Amino acid sequence: MGLIIKNGTIVTPTQTYKADIGVENEKIVAIGENLCDNNAKTVDASGKLVLPGAIDAHTHLEMPFGGTISADDYFAGTRAAVCGGTTTVFDFALQDFDESMVDTIKRRDALCAPKAASDYAFHIGVKDVHGDLINTMKDAVDYGVSSFKVFMVYDFGVTDGVFYQVLEKAKSCGALIGVHAENNDMVNMLCKKFISEGKTDAWYHYASRPEWVEGEADERAIQWAKSLNTSLYIVHLANKQGVEAVTKAKQEGYAIYAETCPQYLEFTSDVYKRDDARNFVCSPPMKGKESQDALWAAIKRGDIDTIATDHCPFQQHEKDWGKDDFTKIPNGCAGIENMYPYMLGKANDGVISFNKVVEICCANPASIFGCTSKGSLDIGKDADIVLYDKDKNFTISVDNMHSDYDHTIWEGKAIHGYPVQTYLRGHLVYDNGEFVGEKGMGKFIKRAPHRHKTK
Amino acid sequence: MGLIIKNGTIVTPTQTYKADIGVENEKIVAIGENLCDNNAKTVDASGKLVLPGAIDAHTHLEMPFGGTISADDYFAGTRAAVCGGTTTVFDFALQDFDESMVDTIKRRDALCAPKAASDYAFHIGVKDVHGDLINTMKDAVDYGVSSFKVFMVYDFGVTDGVFYQVLEKAKSCGALIGVHAENNDMVNMLCKKFISEGKTDAWYHYASRPEWVEGEADERAIQWAKSLNTSLYIVHLANKQGVEAVTKAKQEGYAIYAETCPQYLEFTSDVYKRDDARNFVCSPPMKGKESQDALWAAIKRGDIDTIATDHCPFQQHEKDWGKDDFTKIPNGCAGIENMYPYMLGKANDGVISFNKVVEICCANPASIFGCTSKGSLDIGKDADIVLYDKDKNFTISVDNMHSDYDHTIWEGKAIHGYPVQTYLRGHLVYDNGEFVGEKGMGKFIKRAPHRHKTK
Amino acid sequence: MGLIIKNGTIVTPTQTYKADIGVENEKIVAIGENLCDNNAKTVDASGKLVLPGAIDAHTHLEMPFGGTISADDYFAGTRAAVCGGTTTVFDFALQDFDESMVDTIKRRDALCAPKAASDYAFHIGVKDVHGDLINTMKDAVDYGVSSFKVFMVYDFGVTDGVFYQVLEKAKSCGALIGVHAENNDMVNMLCKKFISEGKTDAWYHYASRPEWVEGEADERAIQWAKSLNTSLYIVHLANKQGVEAVTKAKQEGYAIYAETCPQYLEFTSDVYKRDDARNFVCSPPMKGKESQDALWAAIKRGDIDTIATDHCPFQQHEKDWGKDDFTKIPNGCAGIENMYPYMLGKANDGVISFNKVVEICCANPASIFGCTSKGSLDIGKDADIVLYDKDKNFTISVDNMHSDYDHTIWEGKAIHGYPVQTYLRGHLVYDNGEFVGEKGMGKFIKRAPHRHKTK
Amino acid sequence: MGLIIKNGTIVTPTQTYKADIGVENEKIVAIGENLCDNNAKTVDASGKLVLPGAIDAHTHLEMPFGGTISADDYFAGTRAAVCGGTTTVFDFALQDFDESMVDTIKRRDALCAPKAASDYAFHIGVKDVHGDLINTMKDAVDYGVSSFKVFMVYDFGVTDGVFYQVLEKAKSCGALIGVHAENNDMVNMLCKKFISEGKTDAWYHYASRPEWVEGEADERAIQWAKSLNTSLYIVHLANKQGVEAVTKAKQEGYAIYAETCPQYLEFTSDVYKRDDARNFVCSPPMKGKESQDALWAAIKRGDIDTIATDHCPFQQHEKDWGKDDFTKIPNGCAGIENMYPYMLGKANDGVISFNKVVEICCANPASIFGCTSKGSLDIGKDADIVLYDKDKNFTISVDNMHSDYDHTIWEGKAIHGYPVQTYLRGHLVYDNGEFVGEKGMGKFIKRAPHRHKTK
Repeated sequence: MGLIIKNGTIVTPTQTYKADIGVENEKIVAIGENLCDNNAKTVDASGKLVLPGAIDAHTHLEMPFGGTISADDYFAGTRAAVCGGTTTVFDFALQDFDESMVDTIKRRDALCAPKAASDYAFHIGVKDVHGDLINTMKDAVDYGVSSFKVFMVYDFGVTDGVFYQVLEKAKSCGALIGVHAENNDMVNMLCKKFISEGKTDAWYHYASRPEWVEGEADERAIQWAKSLNTSLYIVHLANKQGVEAVTKAKQEGYAIYAETCPQYLEFTSDVYKRDDARNFVCSPPMKGKESQDALWAAIKRGDIDTIATDHCPFQQHEKDWGKDDFTKIPNGCAGIENMYPYMLGKANDGVISFNKVVEICCANPASIFGCTSKGSLDIGKDADIVLYDKDKNFTISVDNMHSDYDHTIWEGKAIHGYPVQTYLRGHLVYDNGEFVGEKGMGKFIKRAPHRHKTK
Repeated sequence: MGLIIKNGTIVTPTQTYKADIGVENEKIVAIGENLCDNNAKTVDASGKLVLPGAIDAHTHLEMPFGGTISADDYFAGTRAAVCGGTTTVFDFALQDFDESMVDTIKRRDALCAPKAASDYAFHIGVKDVHGDLINTMKDAVDYGVSSFKVFMVYDFGVTDGVFYQVLEKAKSCGALIGVHAENNDMVNMLCKKFISEGKTDAWYHYASRPEWVEGEADERAIQWAKSLNTSLYIVHLANKQGVEAVTKAKQEGYAIYAETCPQYLEFTSDVYKRDDARNFVCSPPMKGKESQDALWAAIKRGDIDTIATDHCPFQQHEKDWGKDDFTKIPNGCAGIENMYPYMLGKANDGVISFNKVVEICCANPASIFGCTSKGSLDIGKDADIVLYDKDKNFTISVDNMHSDYDHTIWEGKAIHGYPVQTYLRGHLVYDNGEFVGEKGMGKFIKRAPHRHKTK
Repeated sequence: MGLIIKNGTIVTPTQTYKADIGVENEKIVAIGENLCDNNAKTVDASGKLVLPGAIDAHTHLEMPFGGTISADDYFAGTRAAVCGGTTTVFDFALQDFDESMVDTIKRRDALCAPKAASDYAFHIGVKDVHGDLINTMKDAVDYGVSSFKVFMVYDFGVTDGVFYQVLEKAKSCGALIGVHAENNDMVNMLCKKFISEGKTDAWYHYASRPEWVEGEADERAIQWAKSLNTSLYIVHLANKQGVEAVTKAKQEGYAIYAETCPQYLEFTSDVYKRDDARNFVCSPPMKGKESQDALWAAIKRGDIDTIATDHCPFQQHEKDWGKDDFTKIPNGCAGIENMYPYMLGKANDGVISFNKVVEICCANPASIFGCTSKGSLDIGKDADIVLYDKDKNFTISVDNMHSDYDHTIWEGKAIHGYPVQTYLRGHLVYDNGEFVGEKGMGKFIKRAPHRHKTK
Repeated sequence: MGLIIKNGTIVTPTQTYKADIGVENEKIVAIGENLCDNNAKTVDASGKLVLPGAIDAHTHLEMPFGGTISADDYFAGTRAAVCGGTTTVFDFALQDFDESMVDTIKRRDALCAPKAASDYAFHIGVKDVHGDLINTMKDAVDYGVSSFKVFMVYDFGVTDGVFYQVLEKAKSCGALIGVHAENNDMVNMLCKKFISEGKTDAWYHYASRPEWVEGEADERAIQWAKSLNTSLYIVHLANKQGVEAVTKAKQEGYAIYAETCPQYLEFTSDVYKRDDARNFVCSPPMKGKESQDALWAAIKRGDIDTIATDHCPFQQHEKDWGKDDFTKIPNGCAGIENMYPYMLGKANDGVISFNKVVEICCANPASIFGCTSKGSLDIGKDADIVLYDKDKNFTISVDNMHSDYDHTIWEGKAIHGYPVQTYLRGHLVYDNGEFVGEKGMGKFIKRAPHRHKTK
């Protein structure tokens, strides 16, 4: 064996136990008491938790948006990821009009491959499925990209009819559809109304996207999935009404998956009353306390399946574009380095269990998105391993983050417990505050088709 | 008194009792035992039920649609109405683009006033509320037209944002919004799909509007009303999912009203397998047996508030346009003369009570739509009175109807019990099979504003 | 005609209109504009509402309980009733062990008949149905007593099995079962516990009957009715969980009726923190604010069918027996004279409509309990009429009540609007503060069998 | 290492992967690729699934009931268990009146310890908690028995008040309460009724326990747990209404656990129409198809937590006692050897996954009941291991079972896939059809206290 991590406490979604882990050829090959191999490098994990690397299934790196490009390029973003214990990053490759799905992947992979410091995968953001383009979805699945996202919001988003057709095609070709659910027409109408009334500050970003703007869209999206008896994955679920719709659908037997993000678990719409409110502008916006409570309750009872970040930071001067008109603020916030430490901190504080964190940050996204070599500490899996110190205190600051952004909504957040080492396929890439990996060492993850569960 | 109807059995929504009714100056002025006035004309109603005239809150007379005009003009339609015991007819005045709401009313009233054989009122079908047009809604309310209808379907229908704005305006100016709830984008997509697959017969009219196409739209419409905490009236509700949504909203305390039509209570989607399937094409289409059962159950427990007809007949040669392409069939069926006899027949058969029929065909539409002089046999109300013979048998045929259409979906339907006389404001207008009223005697009903109930 | 009430505004459950009412031989014989009969006595009701007399379907007069007898005998109680606009009173005739149902009625009627100042009816409180006694239920129905009450609480109450048998028998013989739903075993256990812990003040009456003690029993009672697909009437419903169970059952199509009482609408469990808390001790006790809100909402949406009082006053010295042990406080409060003025006052204040009050205080109890001659102002009904002055102010005090009790929980309650005259079958019995009727003039109401509605 | 099981496919609740397992001192000490130790005995598991031994949390061995003793004594029952892949058996130790909880355990353990062929644990069946007896619950928890069962049925069962007190005590002392939920009074009433009507055959065992007899009791039991915000475990859940109540409670955040049994998943109430109907008599009885479907759906969506057997066989001549009176049939059926093969067979047939079977037959009962050394194939756990051949066909017959009963309801049931070896703490105890263990080798499992999750 090349590496033995000794004496740590291994956490799986259902078990917590002491054992050594042996790694060879980037894979986990042994778990046991007193593993020994004189040729192996040995790491002492006494007193540490030994966790699988996290999977962040929702990021926007190097993404053109609102006249600029998101602040983290593929290197900065994936570097930050591994420094926060996240070893696999999903990026959204947004289709161009008239572009085949595989071309979309290749176009973005050409940018990503030379820079990636973590392993990575793509979802395709669907814009255009007219004519034969819809059939290129299958090509993408064959290529190893078995998930697509549709937008019910933004003017490039899809109509209900197109959404339905995409769902139908996905069911037949082994793809899972993710959806950004907000009612576009309502958002546009309310934005226009507020601007015409001279209500231009960042609070009106929230006011123009009230809870039901997301809730109604969640219900409608779930309706289409039910109509086709197919799976659906709701990204960045942030509101109570939507949580209730997900719960009801699951209870009826439908495979409706839900993702939420740390920002919705930590902040409420109160942030939009702050002086730096524009920095918190993202879509959907943070919601009220009732919604936040509903999200935590759903995590506890298993109705939220995954945590991801929607990482999409912009620089301060870009956020400032919307000082006098909230519609001009580029939407998005940082998070890629914060997700796993934040959720693990919640476990360390007793809010949820460490097993639950491993379930929703590692095992579930791996299983839902077909990352067969990722997501758990079991024999044969990639040796993506995080050592976690329950006693280490950490305060988030733009200064100790490994991204390229110049501010963060998480500034000043104190976290109890923190990752001390991250291994990517057995290679040490993060060591106690320092990035020690290499640009370009991340690999594209060819994923299995999605296995649809029907009612 | 000018008229005394003696010895009949009066039916109200809550009581059934024997008494005489005295009429003077077109109004009910006395109810009692042994009323007598030597100057009065006396009608013996022994053995008969004495009922208020019905209100049909949903008709399309003389309406341009699909390249033709519906078969009944304002005279033929209202003549047929009174021959079926319906003394007040609501017609839809469809706004033109850039036309003020009051202009819409005046334009249609100019056609209707000289022809009406029953009293009548208008809803305005909203197409255009840009700029100041939305403010002309208040003018219409002042004019006595306190209800508007929006279409979620058809390409002239409204977007969600416009729907919301119309609801908001209606709440502030005393108007009630009715909605035709079907998802336009889904219907278009499915129609296009079926046509492209060569599936062109009338069955695909139903298949392109599956139950959830209406159900989702019902839920969405109710969502907007809830968001504004305002009233909403769902026209021609035909599906189970929508019924459940109405029930839930009522239970939560919202003033969501629902109307259904006799055709949904009598027929199921099986009719679209018949040779004459195209004659049954209307929107929404008849639904499955589960939906029909849900409608009846909702009537019984009070979750359906009104019955109306959506009367919109076309001639056979017009229906035949769609022989080889279901999208070319003009949408609509006859019903204006059948509603009250059909529902009373159901009471006579023991399915529901006569009190219930009077409630949903007379008292409720009067109350919901502000017809303060209509809808019940009480002192001070218009003397719109129907004498009903529980023992008279009747079989519907195009030959014994009083419309101008050349066929009817109700052909051959046997009904037990039938109206024998109809009085419009004290004037006999229907007598045992014969229309005995006059063209133009019907009056425009100036209605009170809608009283919004909030949660 | 013997009496004409002129120029008043008549209120029915669905209509409000101006008309005169003519009375002859104790019945309403005419309703109309400008009724005249030179032989008739004429009463001018200008500016007044003309209402049906109320029906109080839940009282305990002259009732032995807890070692004493409730403070109002049949005369005092019914005198107070008519002075509050209630013209029909239901009393509970509690069966003795081994006594036939008809014997129970006769035993109590012998006490009541010579004293009654209002019309009256009986429910039978069931204790013993062993052997053939259960068959005497049918005899009672034939006698005109078509309702029975079972107690799930109190040690003389029934087991689940007996409850089921009584429901089954009632379904077959045209009787309606009312139920006092609280879990006896839980109440006993909690009382014993609190007393053993030295917690003896009146607050612990509430604490030993927490919301779910009633809620669970409501759900269980409804379960048995559903199991038999039969009707059930829940008396004095006071808690939110029970309201939800009733709503759900109605929605499913079951004929589950619910009654609540003014004390639950006016007071909350906070009264048990007062110095005079023991005066408010009744079972079920007043509940929390959430339950009160749920009751009002249920009234508004039609899920509470009737209002009654559970009138069962005790004198102050009797209430004081429980000063040091809440289990020794006789259970019950006054209300018979307050119900109708209280509910009408709520209408006058705009909380609900006058139509709704007439529905739940008059029409519904008449219909549910088979009082065919009562409950509405229609031709042929008993002339039980109340004139109501919307402008009269009234403050409740033991001094202006017409009962025999020496204190009241309603002391000091100000009410806007008050009855000024009550007619019992056309006879004036209450006139502006004074009882002007006669002891013994009240008649036993022979009721029709209950018409069971099944799902 | 003492034992290495090589080349098998390991199944956990969330993963399936190939690896070797190493055992030393009765524990699992290594999992890995190519484990080798020349001193170890090696077993080749190529082509086999490697599973944790199952836990049967519900059996009645050597139990006095209905005038006899259940057919399997502690040896026969546990021998049969290991031959079906079940390595830990929970037996019910039924308390005597006036007996302390620890005395109950010791009394039964004295019988069990010398005979047990599998590991075992006890639940205590509670009969008497008067006075200080309730405090002996804590002693039992300290002794390693952290679960108790109350009966809502049978005449020795508990009242609601006692049930509540037991739940309250359990919450405070780290115990989990299981409940047999059927309404005793209803069962008694219906039995008496049927017998009095001469309806005596085994069908009336089912008829006297209709679906709602169990459903109502489930709802009531859950109510008490909610009232105390504490955990509850419902044993042998068999009806749809109960499933819905469990789902609702879980969704609200309560820790309500549910167990069902293979007989409810395989048979419906139709068995009570068979000639040998009495052999299927158990309580609760098999229910209708709707309930069976609801159970499977609940397993799939995670609302059923565990599978157990309620193993309690009687000999044919004992079952025959009730030939002419269904109330005389001893209640209970065989199952201890069938559970794991049956559930695994369902996985092999594609109904559920093998991971799900391992979750509900092994991991969940271990976790819920505090068996910290059992339930999964992880480092440090007891080496309770089953090798499973997916291709082996097996037909259940009394002849190939390892119990002492003389008939089985499972006779003739064909199962695809079957266990071929069972290891108890590393010792081979079952080998391809033969019991190869030893009487008395089973150990008492000292369990951890239950960790209550509150809402």
